[in-house]
Amino acid sequence: MVKKFKVGVAGLGSVGAATVKLLQEESDLISLRTGCSIDVSLVSARDENKERDFSHNEVKWVNDPTHMAKDSQLDLVVEAIGGESGIAKAVIETALGAKKHVVTANKALIACHGLDLAKIAESAGVSLKFEAAVAGGIPIIKALNEGLSSNRVTSIYGILNGTCNYLLSNMQRSGREFNDLLEEAKQLGYAESDPTFDIDGTDTAHKLAILSSLAFSTRPSFSSIYTEGITNITPQDFEFADELGYRIKLLGIARMTEMGLEQRVHPCLVKMDAPIGYIEDVFNGVVIEGNHVGTAMFEGRGAGPGPTSSAVVADIIDIVLGRVSKPFGVPVKHLEEPIQSEFAQRKGAYYIRCSVLDQPGVFAEIATVLKENSVSMERVIQRGSNNGGGVQVVMTTHEAKEEEIELIIGSIDKSKVVLEPTRVIRIEPNIFGE
Amino acid sequence: MVKKFKVGVAGLGSVGAATVKLLQEESDLISLRTGCSIDVSLVSARDENKERDFSHNEVKWVNDPTHMAKDSQLDLVVEAIGGESGIAKAVIETALGAKKHVVTANKALIACHGLDLAKIAESAGVSLKFEAAVAGGIPIIKALNEGLSSNRVTSIYGILNGTCNYLLSNMQRSGREFNDLLEEAKQLGYAESDPTFDIDGTDTAHKLAILSSLAFSTRPSFSSIYTEGITNITPQDFEFADELGYRIKLLGIARMTEMGLEQRVHPCLVKMDAPIGYIEDVFNGVVIEGNHVGTAMFEGRGAGPGPTSSAVVADIIDIVLGRVSKPFGVPVKHLEEPIQSEFAQRKGAYYIRCSVLDQPGVFAEIATVLKENSVSMERVIQRGSNNGGGVQVVMTTHEAKEEEIELIIGSIDKSKVVLEPTRVIRIEPNIFGE
Repeated sequence: MVKKFKVGVAGLGSVGAATVKLLQEESDLISLRTGCSIDVSLVSARDENKERDFSHNEVKWVNDPTHMAKDSQLDLVVEAIGGESGIAKAVIETALGAKKHVVTANKALIACHGLDLAKIAESAGVSLKFEAAVAGGIPIIKALNEGLSSNRVTSIYGILNGTCNYLLSNMQRSGREFNDLLEEAKQLGYAESDPTFDIDGTDTAHKLAILSSLAFSTRPSFSSIYTEGITNITPQDFEFADELGYRIKLLGIARMTEMGLEQRVHPCLVKMDAPIGYIEDVFNGVVIEGNHVGTAMFEGRGAGPGPTSSAVVADIIDIVLGRVSKPFGVPVKHLEEPIQSEFAQRKGAYYIRCSVLDQPGVFAEIATVLKENSVSMERVIQRGSNNGGGVQVVMTTHEAKEEEIELIIGSIDKSKVVLEPTRVIRIEPNIFGE
Repeated sequence: MVKKFKVGVAGLGSVGAATVKLLQEESDLISLRTGCSIDVSLVSARDENKERDFSHNEVKWVNDPTHMAKDSQLDLVVEAIGGESGIAKAVIETALGAKKHVVTANKALIACHGLDLAKIAESAGVSLKFEAAVAGGIPIIKALNEGLSSNRVTSIYGILNGTCNYLLSNMQRSGREFNDLLEEAKQLGYAESDPTFDIDGTDTAHKLAILSSLAFSTRPSFSSIYTEGITNITPQDFEFADELGYRIKLLGIARMTEMGLEQRVHPCLVKMDAPIGYIEDVFNGVVIEGNHVGTAMFEGRGAGPGPTSSAVVADIIDIVLGRVSKPFGVPVKHLEEPIQSEFAQRKGAYYIRCSVLDQPGVFAEIATVLKENSVSMERVIQRGSNNGGGVQVVMTTHEAKEEEIELIIGSIDKSKVVLEPTRVIRIEPNIFGE
């Protein structure tokens, strides 16, 4: 008789429903790989009567997902409700407490409460897996925990939000305004109706907190990530970036430096011919630098029902076969509290765009501010505005500290010749492929 | 007391020695991850007196590697001798027979005898792992067996040989001749002193046989792979490719088609802006298309002591933690004998370069051959030769069958106006990113 492994799915939005469907559709493949029949026995969601694209035979409905999570017949619970806390958290805590394995795609929850949940999982002796939480179509958590487990990771960075990359790629190609494209993306389903967490960088920071913890064996520290979104990027920035040989990407970057752990999320100028510069539209890409493996890059779809359910089911298969890791790679007690490097002291190159009056001496005034702060310019481009109002001056700098740049922008923006707030985009020089 | 896991290493060339060194240097990291001390207890190689860069304390020398392979104190044997059969095979058979886990980087052996070895491993109830055998720095075997285990793979292809990619990238950038660069690559250590298996495509075919078996759950079938190397590629081909918007890459390609399994290794024209076109120098890249995940691409260093030992040790860590798969993903008895698609019937687009006399009517003669075989041209470029001898005519075709192109080349090369054998490079239209 074939061994049966019973799964409950909490939440039947696009991810939950796709997971049930995949488990049903690929049951032959899955039993070939596992020697087991993985059956969805129980499901729970808000609305029982909604039409869903999977077979309801042998799937029992439970009204209360927390109640379902402790049902004695289940071996494993998939949490697909979402949200940083609330019911999702209660479901996972209940399932782990009842010694059931848990698989989730919930990055916000893992980034903010993953450590506590990992503790419960470890003491219950069950698995808590979340491959789908970061870059769904890319098995990046497995790569960090297993495939590259013999390496000390020195840095990890990438494009972790498909919505932002779709918007930035489109702005670059079309020259259209951010808000205009965002509305279109909502209609096309590439952006949520409330895209705040995507476009303000929060979603990327959630994912970075998870990757960073796995990469450096440190406790996840979402709240210490410097986070800046993409809403201020203009078509002009793309024009200037192109002229300077760059693409604009929202990156999540984590590095272990001599000053401690550096974690930041912000738009970056990356060289046009860097592999990460080519990653377009909804694709995600992650680069890992390890001390033995060197540089490795992984690219794939970051979200959507297909890639996400693919990752959820791969996690389930791993659990069925006993291929398990500690949730954060090493036991929770060995995860260190990271020393955070001070953001103000970070050194890098910058792109600075000023909108100024078209009159003599203006550029000299700006250049003097940089000089007084000992920041040296690399390149300067000056261009008249189309609407006659002023001139755009773009400078790229040599290496400078964050605090120096902040002072400079403060000074520049106090000047009467400046028409709009000056914009800064960080230039990432150490990106793979340069 | 910390549990000890004892390893024997057979072969102390660059891979074997790097593995011993990594296990010693990263012992803290490894015991953090495994809760175990992984000790190299025995080593065996040809020359005991050669200087090697690892600590010899507590490592005992054994003269006969096959004798070492059955030593009762060992839990696991690393085979780093190399070679398609001979001692390497004897060592693995002996170790598996003595119920010891085996990790190897030996692609030739796994491609040709992997099935028999997997049978022995399965019946002995031990692991046989070979992540390092294909694209060392990329955990691609793990991705196929585990990370994407919920997918039916429809195709897998990639740049699998760093030496070839180094040579092709350099030809493209420098315009230099193949043989000239090959000699330089040998001196720089980027090519072996006998690079035959690299440049004739055999090494890529070994790796493709392994990937293909894992991707499609079929028995490895190295001998049925159509294989063509890169020795005939000329600087002129790079010039024409560039003009047509292509790069030239040696790809290993496996697809499950309606006609059966298609496996081929040959130089390809890939679009300049396809992600695989950007993979330069010694880097490898592998693209997987899965039915749920969509397209995913993995890029990293393919060879060298660092990436290879990184993969060998990751395999060891997996074994210590009981994170194991069947060698080819599913039990050997479930691996099907693949129906091979007939290469002559394969359809694709082609780049055809003819060297012809510079006289009226020559192009019409060639065009007539294509027309008579019902193959239609897409683009034509004609260019006078620098050395005055003749004219280069390059045509790209619309879709045609291999057998049609073979007939056409046969006819063209019979003509008296043709000065050199006509060269064909296949154009890959279905490459990720187009």
